[in-house]
Amino acid sequence: MISKSQKENLLNQRAKVLWFTGLSGSGKSTIALGLEEKLFNLGYITKVLDGDNVRTGVNNNLGFSLSDRKENIRRIAEVSKLFCQAGIICINSFISPTIETRTLAKAIIANKNFIEIFIDTPLKICEKRDVKGLYKKARSGELKGFTGIDSPYEIPMQPDLHIRTENRSVQECVDECYREIISIISLT
Amino acid sequence: MISKSQKENLLNQRAKVLWFTGLSGSGKSTIALGLEEKLFNLGYITKVLDGDNVRTGVNNNLGFSLSDRKENIRRIAEVSKLFCQAGIICINSFISPTIETRTLAKAIIANKNFIEIFIDTPLKICEKRDVKGLYKKARSGELKGFTGIDSPYEIPMQPDLHIRTENRSVQECVDECYREIISIISLT
Repeated sequence: MISKSQKENLLNQRAKVLWFTGLSGSGKSTIALGLEEKLFNLGYITKVLDGDNVRTGVNNNLGFSLSDRKENIRRIAEVSKLFCQAGIICINSFISPTIETRTLAKAIIANKNFIEIFIDTPLKICEKRDVKGLYKKARSGELKGFTGIDSPYEIPMQPDLHIRTENRSVQECVDECYREIISIISLT
Repeated sequence: MISKSQKENLLNQRAKVLWFTGLSGSGKSTIALGLEEKLFNLGYITKVLDGDNVRTGVNNNLGFSLSDRKENIRRIAEVSKLFCQAGIICINSFISPTIETRTLAKAIIANKNFIEIFIDTPLKICEKRDVKGLYKKARSGELKGFTGIDSPYEIPMQPDLHIRTENRSVQECVDECYREIISIISLT
């Protein structure tokens, strides 16, 4: 079997899993997609995994119970590991609210390949944006167990990267991500 | 989001799922790995999915009941689709014994991206090889529901590629695969 490092050499990049964690509406996916675009324009090959392509695909038989949420993250981590083995930089955008689930993901992916990126946006800003109207539903009780409202978000204790988004543009956040991770994913 | 075709252009290849089906011991994985090596040496970027990296990973909570086998193939197809969307050629090696499961996989992946490759090795040869000792266990009744013994293998009716392995070397089979698929995965 062709090894990870052989594929990394072919692609001229180091494969890592960039794991974005943060509240709903924090801007995780927007920043993740902006980073993918920036990396693509420089010739890096990446795969963004997020709720849109995972919850409708490999995890379309999972709900939002505690055990399903854990299984959701477990499968995502296993899929990310497959991408990583293929030399691809995996950019994951998931609330992944608990230290336990992120620790599980890290253990599956392998410590050295797991880069935790905390997208730090105050709850009041996420709730004000409320792009999908989910906070409103959570406040009214229509939606139960919503992270930040009636389900906890456990802040990463030692993230590899801590991006504060308040009063900053998407591009500034993308650029900060890029500056911090480029040496990690560059071969040379 | 960067599209499939943008990534295909960057990688100078067309992303497809090459789905190898055949009996246990038919030589599927050996040929799949040989094909990956050949393609890698020509600069193509691929990912081989097989029991070794799927049953121990994303599908490590599935058994061999009918419903678990179907879920096994469903998840594999969804993961393959993610690779395909990322511009990667996915080479899958799974017994996938029934027309129903292969049809399910094809529907998930999309017809135009699903290339069915039937690795056709007579049962008597597979059983004679018995590399993993599984046929012996199946004959003795120790292993139940084993494909080809007490569980059916439904031959593909119209595979995109039909590789007969009897009296041929691995390299001959790999070369035949290569000749048949190269125009499908080439951009130019």
